[in-house]
Amino acid sequence: MADSTLPALRWAEPPDGPVLVLLDQTRLPAEEAELACTDVPGLVAAIQSLVVRGAPLLGIAGAYGVALAAARGYDVTEAARQLAEARPTAVNLAWGVERALAAYRSAGGDGPAAARAALAEARALHRQDAEDSERMAAAGLGLLGELLPGGGYRLLTHCNTGALISGAYGTAFGVVRAAHLAGRLRRLWVDETRPLLQGARLTAYEAARDDMPYAVLADGAAGSLFAAGEVDAVLIGADRIAADGAVANKIGSYPLAVLARHHGVPFIVVAPVSTVDLATPDGAAIRIEHRPGHEVTEVRGVQVAPVGARAYNPAFDVTPPELVTAIVTERGVVSPVDHGNLAEMCAGPRGDGSGSDDGMMRE
Amino acid sequence: MADSTLPALRWAEPPDGPVLVLLDQTRLPAEEAELACTDVPGLVAAIQSLVVRGAPLLGIAGAYGVALAAARGYDVTEAARQLAEARPTAVNLAWGVERALAAYRSAGGDGPAAARAALAEARALHRQDAEDSERMAAAGLGLLGELLPGGGYRLLTHCNTGALISGAYGTAFGVVRAAHLAGRLRRLWVDETRPLLQGARLTAYEAARDDMPYAVLADGAAGSLFAAGEVDAVLIGADRIAADGAVANKIGSYPLAVLARHHGVPFIVVAPVSTVDLATPDGAAIRIEHRPGHEVTEVRGVQVAPVGARAYNPAFDVTPPELVTAIVTERGVVSPVDHGNLAEMCAGPRGDGSGSDDGMMRE
Repeated sequence: MADSTLPALRWAEPPDGPVLVLLDQTRLPAEEAELACTDVPGLVAAIQSLVVRGAPLLGIAGAYGVALAAARGYDVTEAARQLAEARPTAVNLAWGVERALAAYRSAGGDGPAAARAALAEARALHRQDAEDSERMAAAGLGLLGELLPGGGYRLLTHCNTGALISGAYGTAFGVVRAAHLAGRLRRLWVDETRPLLQGARLTAYEAARDDMPYAVLADGAAGSLFAAGEVDAVLIGADRIAADGAVANKIGSYPLAVLARHHGVPFIVVAPVSTVDLATPDGAAIRIEHRPGHEVTEVRGVQVAPVGARAYNPAFDVTPPELVTAIVTERGVVSPVDHGNLAEMCAGPRGDGSGSDDGMMRE
Repeated sequence: MADSTLPALRWAEPPDGPVLVLLDQTRLPAEEAELACTDVPGLVAAIQSLVVRGAPLLGIAGAYGVALAAARGYDVTEAARQLAEARPTAVNLAWGVERALAAYRSAGGDGPAAARAALAEARALHRQDAEDSERMAAAGLGLLGELLPGGGYRLLTHCNTGALISGAYGTAFGVVRAAHLAGRLRRLWVDETRPLLQGARLTAYEAARDDMPYAVLADGAAGSLFAAGEVDAVLIGADRIAADGAVANKIGSYPLAVLARHHGVPFIVVAPVSTVDLATPDGAAIRIEHRPGHEVTEVRGVQVAPVGARAYNPAFDVTPPELVTAIVTERGVVSPVDHGNLAEMCAGPRGDGSGSDDGMMRE
């Protein structure tokens, strides 16, 4: 994490063998505690219980997980399979795993040299994510300047998309932070983001650290902000973007897109290119993770619904491309959002994720 | 409460003087505990802390509060003022207070006879609410039959509008219950209704008691149900309906109205005529109660946001009449919702709240 005492994730090599150390996000903001993963089942459990979370960071964690399996002498192919399937919706996870696995295999697929190659690839992805984060922030700030020439932005965000999901400043929150540093953030509205409260717990934590003018709200309260003209733009991240531009993101994102359209407010998605999955043709083809009902019927361990209450608890929803004003990636801004524009961006330079600085897609 | 061990509210006259006994709704569903109010400040505090809540029940509680003040020898005019102002948005509260105060004054404005008159009026309102509840349920069920000829309704509701806010079966939930008893309820989707979780705590409690096929969801998850075609109609209550048909209701109602319109799903408001306030011309004129930020930053006493986090916490939002398919009252169905149709209903028979059975407003 850019300016925190504890990074969201770090690799360490104590005498008793390498470990992947995670900031336990389930315990924030009350406690800043770390969890050291020494094996793949432990990391898979940490991913599934959201100790580590957020699409870009899941990619990095997946890559380090392959490196951990290799360094610790596990069956790397089996470890990669388990890691990639730990959560189904964020495509970045499988992508990061695949990248590290490919590096491992290219280096012989066995032994210390292959293990070092997997670790080097994980570290490269980690650094790359930090660079991409800065590029997205710059591109997003430029887009805000175009869309909202008046300045004094009142931005609404959902879930957590900041330093806790990134090698640096994150996706949507990175843009918010850039606006704040530029003196152009008038208000950050933070959806609390039930059921797991990533907004109230994590985004508020990051906004408070940066001394932003923010306020937390119940997800249902966003409507009255739109109605009062108090939202200039919505900025969210993404867990998977289909080839047609449909965006899977944290549950509760789609209602914001519908509200934004109803009120003529820009709805902007910020995500690295690794989030785009051209193999998924459209939103209907995105597999949505359904999580245990107790996440809804309990809040932070306190039972709220009657014992035995049933719950509907999808982790993500899908926003169709026609409701998305723009997708901001490290390569620039895609707008209008459609199959052709997305494919063009994905086919462009840095398609392998390495180096080179490109301009924006749109004029 | 119709089929509960404990009613939401009851008048009692133990040897040491009359009391208004409230089911403490803040402790449901974990505990069924009663709170006895012996004075007006205690009742005002109970109203403000939501021990007793829900627009129709607030009207009844307000009337009993005047009766309590009269029976206990308080300054009845001052008590009425304090009660009416305890919460600003639900017009029923001031209406119930005013009704009991008028009865008190008509009976001399002093002494035991006037106190008995206030109590008689409160009891009349209580009984009237039970009758109105049955009429609303019948009218709402008829409307669902017209709008959804196929049966097998999948209904979505927000907040709590059942026996806990009523002398009998409530408003929107009374319609749901009638559909259930008629074998026509396929699914009840229960918005948990942050910040105070009246859906998860209270509506789920009532749905479970009636053995309905229900599921609780985070408020933000409703969007994906609409997108999946899993919602046939939205049914909510109201805290105040302006003369133009704008509906103030629990925060989170307006986003459902926008989603319903986007997906072509009927959005139905169920409320007694006493909720209509012809003195409030439109939605912009409705005073919205803002509640303490800790309701958002804490959940059931557990701190979730960082200490010191700011919050935006309006208790209600306003849905404009053009997004409301119909308003169902004890006098029938108003649709389309506009100033003329609402005024016609309010001017009709039973404008004084007494007796007589009318048909539906619409053909």
